[in-house]
Amino acid sequence: MKLSVNQITTSRLGVEEAVDLYAAKGIGGISLWEDRVRDFGIARTKALVRDAGMDVSGFCIVGMFSKQGRAGIGKQVDAARASVDLAAELGAPCAVTVVGGLLPDSRDIGDARRLCFDALAEVLEHARAVQLPLALEPLHPMYVPDWSVVATLAQANSWCDRLGAGIGLAIDTYHIWWDPEAEDGIRSAGREGRILTFHLNDWRAETRSLLLDRGIPGDGVIDLRRFVDLVRGCGYDGWMEVEIFSETLWAGDQTRLIDDILRATAPLLKRDGHV
Amino acid sequence: MKLSVNQITTSRLGVEEAVDLYAAKGIGGISLWEDRVRDFGIARTKALVRDAGMDVSGFCIVGMFSKQGRAGIGKQVDAARASVDLAAELGAPCAVTVVGGLLPDSRDIGDARRLCFDALAEVLEHARAVQLPLALEPLHPMYVPDWSVVATLAQANSWCDRLGAGIGLAIDTYHIWWDPEAEDGIRSAGREGRILTFHLNDWRAETRSLLLDRGIPGDGVIDLRRFVDLVRGCGYDGWMEVEIFSETLWAGDQTRLIDDILRATAPLLKRDGHV
Repeated sequence: MKLSVNQITTSRLGVEEAVDLYAAKGIGGISLWEDRVRDFGIARTKALVRDAGMDVSGFCIVGMFSKQGRAGIGKQVDAARASVDLAAELGAPCAVTVVGGLLPDSRDIGDARRLCFDALAEVLEHARAVQLPLALEPLHPMYVPDWSVVATLAQANSWCDRLGAGIGLAIDTYHIWWDPEAEDGIRSAGREGRILTFHLNDWRAETRSLLLDRGIPGDGVIDLRRFVDLVRGCGYDGWMEVEIFSETLWAGDQTRLIDDILRATAPLLKRDGHV
Repeated sequence: MKLSVNQITTSRLGVEEAVDLYAAKGIGGISLWEDRVRDFGIARTKALVRDAGMDVSGFCIVGMFSKQGRAGIGKQVDAARASVDLAAELGAPCAVTVVGGLLPDSRDIGDARRLCFDALAEVLEHARAVQLPLALEPLHPMYVPDWSVVATLAQANSWCDRLGAGIGLAIDTYHIWWDPEAEDGIRSAGREGRILTFHLNDWRAETRSLLLDRGIPGDGVIDLRRFVDLVRGCGYDGWMEVEIFSETLWAGDQTRLIDDILRATAPLLKRDGHV
């Protein structure tokens, strides 16, 4: 596997500062967020990453279908198609897909799941046409209200089974580590050639915020070695992407943060005796 | 179903104040916490609840096997046996069982699961002997590090299958509402006559704390009607217990809180056309 860093990890930095910092540290890939790329300029971003000798390792995010309510689904599907086009233009190997949470003012989780599934099926047709794989990401169950009604690997695998070609999974240790069926879910995804990207970050023992208190790999309670070996054992040899949402880390020294990430991931990037 | 309130819901009140308040409001059941009962006195608690014309509807908690580390498992098993005896003495219909999280200084979730399972099997033998059913409670996945390596209904059902007689489930809406397999899990538990208690509280849309920001039924995003109808459809007609951990609600007027709970649960206690 090769290390990449998601630009949200150094959220305070602009696109240029992030690329400069990652490149200076020898990191080969950067994952980009749509709004930041559009603000900075698409052509400028492409040139910057290319000139730095780096790759765009991923794109965030396609989806959020339920966010604007039932009447807004069409608009979200259109926006998702545009996001897919942008991801393709940037040369991203896949677009991370987060389907959205409950509909506003609704408690009907089944309804939200049906609407998000159907919207995803529509966007997938377009993604197939432009040959940009969608990486469906099951999020931790605590994000069901706002972010994703897809909450487990088993559920995401089942959606992929029903959707067919052109869609796979984004596997993020933070979201799946707790799941007694995580290993089965990863192996099942591996058999289908469905692991499109692998995200690494850690669950801090004393988590203070549902969204913005994730940890540097090694600073939490997740057995990251186990998950690295599992995806590698499934034949995955793509990016190992560090993606960390953390107000604390965002406020600190960003160069030191990248150094800490390099130190933490170095042993994980090496094969050891476990596989 | 009959309404009960878990005393943690009015955490600031002592045993006597809580019983007085609940009884004055016509609530038939109170669920008790071991440390509070022992502090107040076991015989005094029994007399108080009986004289108020109420029932002990539940007991918290048996378990936390992993809390003191591997060397402390035996001690935790002994403590759990004593908890079971206390629950039986109080006349509780079951003892809520929370198995514990990761072992301190360990990331091995499989190891924690094996140790907790084996410890639970030991305690179950004693619970059978004193005829006190254990109600295994799967907690929300965000509590895996500290509270419970049992995180889904499917997993809890599987443990019950392996453990045999004398153990069933505590189903709490807050912990299971997000799960795409929740309905299957409840129906499966129902078929086995395994639903021992049913807890009601709500997931607030803007949850600020992992532990202490739960909502009064109706103040959050859970489709509570659906779950009430589901457990009722499985033949469950025991306590509907309101259990809320919330710093905000604990700090407020406790009488008004109980009034709000009564208002919120009144429609849920009635059968409607949905079943």
